[in-house]
Amino acid sequence: MTVQIGIIGCGVMGADHCRLLHGEIFGAKLVAVQDSDRPRAALVAASAGDVRIHDFAHDLIADRDIDAVVIASPDHTHAALATACVEAGKPVLCEKPLAATIEECQAVMTMEMTGGRRLVQVGYMRRFDPGYRAMKRSLDDQQFGRPLFLHCVHRNAVAPHYITSDLVIANSSVHEIDIARFLLDEEFAAVTVISARSSRHAAMRQPQFIVLESASGVIVTVEAFLDAQYGYDVQAELVCEDGTVSLAPNPPVSRRHAHREGFEIDGDWRARFADAYRDQLKEWVASIEDGRPVGSSAWDGYAASATAAAALEALAAGGKTATNLGERPAFYAG
Amino acid sequence: MTVQIGIIGCGVMGADHCRLLHGEIFGAKLVAVQDSDRPRAALVAASAGDVRIHDFAHDLIADRDIDAVVIASPDHTHAALATACVEAGKPVLCEKPLAATIEECQAVMTMEMTGGRRLVQVGYMRRFDPGYRAMKRSLDDQQFGRPLFLHCVHRNAVAPHYITSDLVIANSSVHEIDIARFLLDEEFAAVTVISARSSRHAAMRQPQFIVLESASGVIVTVEAFLDAQYGYDVQAELVCEDGTVSLAPNPPVSRRHAHREGFEIDGDWRARFADAYRDQLKEWVASIEDGRPVGSSAWDGYAASATAAAALEALAAGGKTATNLGERPAFYAG
Amino acid sequence: MTVQIGIIGCGVMGADHCRLLHGEIFGAKLVAVQDSDRPRAALVAASAGDVRIHDFAHDLIADRDIDAVVIASPDHTHAALATACVEAGKPVLCEKPLAATIEECQAVMTMEMTGGRRLVQVGYMRRFDPGYRAMKRSLDDQQFGRPLFLHCVHRNAVAPHYITSDLVIANSSVHEIDIARFLLDEEFAAVTVISARSSRHAAMRQPQFIVLESASGVIVTVEAFLDAQYGYDVQAELVCEDGTVSLAPNPPVSRRHAHREGFEIDGDWRARFADAYRDQLKEWVASIEDGRPVGSSAWDGYAASATAAAALEALAAGGKTATNLGERPAFYAG
Amino acid sequence: MTVQIGIIGCGVMGADHCRLLHGEIFGAKLVAVQDSDRPRAALVAASAGDVRIHDFAHDLIADRDIDAVVIASPDHTHAALATACVEAGKPVLCEKPLAATIEECQAVMTMEMTGGRRLVQVGYMRRFDPGYRAMKRSLDDQQFGRPLFLHCVHRNAVAPHYITSDLVIANSSVHEIDIARFLLDEEFAAVTVISARSSRHAAMRQPQFIVLESASGVIVTVEAFLDAQYGYDVQAELVCEDGTVSLAPNPPVSRRHAHREGFEIDGDWRARFADAYRDQLKEWVASIEDGRPVGSSAWDGYAASATAAAALEALAAGGKTATNLGERPAFYAG
Repeated sequence: MTVQIGIIGCGVMGADHCRLLHGEIFGAKLVAVQDSDRPRAALVAASAGDVRIHDFAHDLIADRDIDAVVIASPDHTHAALATACVEAGKPVLCEKPLAATIEECQAVMTMEMTGGRRLVQVGYMRRFDPGYRAMKRSLDDQQFGRPLFLHCVHRNAVAPHYITSDLVIANSSVHEIDIARFLLDEEFAAVTVISARSSRHAAMRQPQFIVLESASGVIVTVEAFLDAQYGYDVQAELVCEDGTVSLAPNPPVSRRHAHREGFEIDGDWRARFADAYRDQLKEWVASIEDGRPVGSSAWDGYAASATAAAALEALAAGGKTATNLGERPAFYAG
Repeated sequence: MTVQIGIIGCGVMGADHCRLLHGEIFGAKLVAVQDSDRPRAALVAASAGDVRIHDFAHDLIADRDIDAVVIASPDHTHAALATACVEAGKPVLCEKPLAATIEECQAVMTMEMTGGRRLVQVGYMRRFDPGYRAMKRSLDDQQFGRPLFLHCVHRNAVAPHYITSDLVIANSSVHEIDIARFLLDEEFAAVTVISARSSRHAAMRQPQFIVLESASGVIVTVEAFLDAQYGYDVQAELVCEDGTVSLAPNPPVSRRHAHREGFEIDGDWRARFADAYRDQLKEWVASIEDGRPVGSSAWDGYAASATAAAALEALAAGGKTATNLGERPAFYAG
Repeated sequence: MTVQIGIIGCGVMGADHCRLLHGEIFGAKLVAVQDSDRPRAALVAASAGDVRIHDFAHDLIADRDIDAVVIASPDHTHAALATACVEAGKPVLCEKPLAATIEECQAVMTMEMTGGRRLVQVGYMRRFDPGYRAMKRSLDDQQFGRPLFLHCVHRNAVAPHYITSDLVIANSSVHEIDIARFLLDEEFAAVTVISARSSRHAAMRQPQFIVLESASGVIVTVEAFLDAQYGYDVQAELVCEDGTVSLAPNPPVSRRHAHREGFEIDGDWRARFADAYRDQLKEWVASIEDGRPVGSSAWDGYAASATAAAALEALAAGGKTATNLGERPAFYAG
Repeated sequence: MTVQIGIIGCGVMGADHCRLLHGEIFGAKLVAVQDSDRPRAALVAASAGDVRIHDFAHDLIADRDIDAVVIASPDHTHAALATACVEAGKPVLCEKPLAATIEECQAVMTMEMTGGRRLVQVGYMRRFDPGYRAMKRSLDDQQFGRPLFLHCVHRNAVAPHYITSDLVIANSSVHEIDIARFLLDEEFAAVTVISARSSRHAAMRQPQFIVLESASGVIVTVEAFLDAQYGYDVQAELVCEDGTVSLAPNPPVSRRHAHREGFEIDGDWRARFADAYRDQLKEWVASIEDGRPVGSSAWDGYAASATAAAALEALAAGGKTATNLGERPAFYAG
């Protein structure tokens, strides 16, 4: 069986999903794309062989040849489109965040629960990264006892021009919130945000330092620094009662030259998380066939956004803020 | 377009190609398998959906639904099967070695040249490993000047029961011979083999140390040690006039535990070269579509086997042996 | 010239200073020791050749043959003994902390200022560690722009039996406070302490996580975990506007064995900081000859203790506490 | 007791021994220096306080205030000066090589055996390097079974102007010969030398590749490359039946900057072997006091030179050469 897929949104992320679906993902066939900028859609369609172009996202969702949908359009459109997919009974891989507001996240969950079937996967691709997965296995196997700390570092070489202090948290650190929840398998009770002095390269108040306290007392720290200049660098060290596990995402060769020995550092996230993006699509396609959801659920998407919202409050207030996600519906258990 | 593929030989390697073709390779469809042990063929076929089983290899090659063939049967069958594929005009990925004898290698080349079309790829998968590829790029870009040394280490945890001193070279070190030829883009003029004292774990005279001298004077050293106990470990350091490039195939996480910090070492080649095996099939399938051959050619397969044969002479004679491959036919240039 | 030295206190630290002074430090001669436990003093004296034993610390300080004093007696005796050395006009290397209370620290400073001569060095030996020194040079040379973060980790294998939540800060993290002040060359304005859930190996509320904010906005984080089991591990990463510098205190060899590759981790601080302890004594002895003080001054000793006291308040209160050290006297400038 | 020392030869090595003896070595006192270039001797003397200057080496050796002698004069003077020290009954640390010819090495041994007392230590300082020592311990403790290979790399950034193909072996690789003998505790039976093509930076035929076969069949490989440009780099990997031990001489910090992560590489041997040079002098001084010789003996000096001579024959002949050191006198056992 081949899963026929349509992509909504043909920007950087949409184009990359297109490249993967048309060349890397066994069992998938990209059949249509849509973008509000039609020439952009045409360009992406041309790169993928004989792919239809829809003028409107809702036409693509309604297309009978399409079994499943990837949403890579602007953030504010996610909730409505994901909801439409759910209404149409079609599995959807929605780029993060699930929605622009907490209420919209909740609306997507409500619709999905009404339908009675898990159809939404949120594109927190790190859950498919081999490093985080090895970390997760060491927790599941209790190799080193219970976790006590997870130290995260999220550094970009150069911040996007549109970045704000809020987006450092809402757009970047939200990845750390999701992966920490994935690893620890619990929610956060409180969050503290402390701003460092600004780098001379930064256009706004950043970097930030975030301390999340899980319900059981695990401390998750996040350094979020989007103008680190030297490269793209995502670190994580899991500290357990008897040992530690750290990401070690080195490139395949080291070099010695000009009185230096070492590794190249990527310029952006694409090489660093290439395996994660590919395996996310691969396992999503497989999950459509076998009916067992993988990756971040709508609840996970809601929880990440709600926790980030609490962090934004803490940033504004300059102190510690309690989070309150409410009870997780049984529908999203396991 | 989808390339329809048949696999001859359903042992470890054949089963692995089957797994990759049915689950990892976009644009490929496994349609038939064959093995002299029919239940084994049936087992592999069952793992790949509705796949036909042929009783005889030549029937599979003749099957009109099959566009291309993977040969993973015993070494002594390679030459005849590869020749049959060439005669049938079908692209073939033949596990290494290309043939059991130098004469057979030459016969495959003759047949391929007679047909006038490059159809044979030999499964020296290291050419698709990200580490060796980065090394090759650094040479092609002349990042560090001309090469002077390539130091190779090939260690297995435990030697297979059938291993002999000769097979240490003919079966294992032949990988280093092929990848060194790939990297340096020239042939070897001489080879010296020196046997170390035997490990107490070794059943025959090994480990071996091999020194290959290229036509232009680059020295390639190979430590071949198939009972190294601690794990599977393939190292390579390329030393150029201005700098060095080394393989650094670390796993995705490091650990600290029990007064040790570091990495796990694989038990065998499967995890170490998983990317290489996948990308070898992926690029082979793509090359069938676009008609531009990739990987090791029949000439490369011949050259690796002929150089290994010279090394076996050097081992027997206990000194240095000249290699003499003859001229590379223009058909295999570039 | 040879500096004649007496040691007060012959416990673990005193015995180690004795070993270094009698065997490693050029230009120094150990001439006397003292300990309230006379047999213990005799044991240490015997290991160092013909060394006198004093019954009382004040006799040792008054000994005319003694040019300079090392204080390694219990913490509550430090202030009175350091003051006596200052009154006697003798240079003193006092193990950290400088005193058991802030008031005593201030009393030592007052006495030293009255005398008009810098005589007190506090034994924060990390200032002599090659790693922290390389870090300091990179800041002094502005290699990577201004500092933004200093991430510290302080892990012991097994906590001493007498440890308490307070001592995690007052005894261990005080090292990080001193070295951070040394590196950043400024004081802290505020400190936040967050307790993690306890390890099952811990007898009290620890590990702790401490966030110090410097006057200029640099964030210093400290994970203090004294029951980490796997070994003694002190990490530091300095994050600047354009790059980072990390401690990399690896042992001189790496090993591959039993499917693992990596380094041994020390069991305690002695091997890790062996160079620092030796160079601390060596440079202290040299400073006595040339009259230019090195290492932590009495002000540094006071500042470390006062900052640790603020952290203890933050721990008790469960929030952020401002520090207030007062103005640094000009006497301690530079 | 203090050992009073004189230094013959005030070039780079002599000046460095002077700096160490006057500032780093407990129990030693530098009392005199000599150099054929008197102003150079005066300069070194001035750096070390009130040190006498002798006009002639033999006057220094005869000086009654001098207990022991360091020889750092030109290579061709070593044998005569070492012999004179032995005749005078004074311990001597002689820079390598022990003598300019094999016959002279033998003459020094003869004189020392005649005197009946071990007085000569040859300055192969690597035996005091923490890395090689850890390697040696792993062999002595049989941590990983018996040794099979020792892979050595000796790279300088830029070859000295006076270097020749012969000196690549006689001057540089002789260090590897000595340390391999130290580690393996046996002599070599045969040596093969293979020249690589020349680097464009090299003024003569180098780099070289040397394969030494020990009496018991351990293979020692040495890449000797004196124009490696990128820095000074000495590597060693010991391969045993059950595991490996590798030198890992990293600097104390790693850095991330400008899309690179890694370590600095030294420009020459001084920083790399600073500990080895200091500990060599320290243990030599201690050995004078306790009468138990350490380091390379005159036999070791002879054996290194004689093995290097066999390697030079192999280089000239272009093949394998047997070594023949003769029996080690019982005088040098243990």
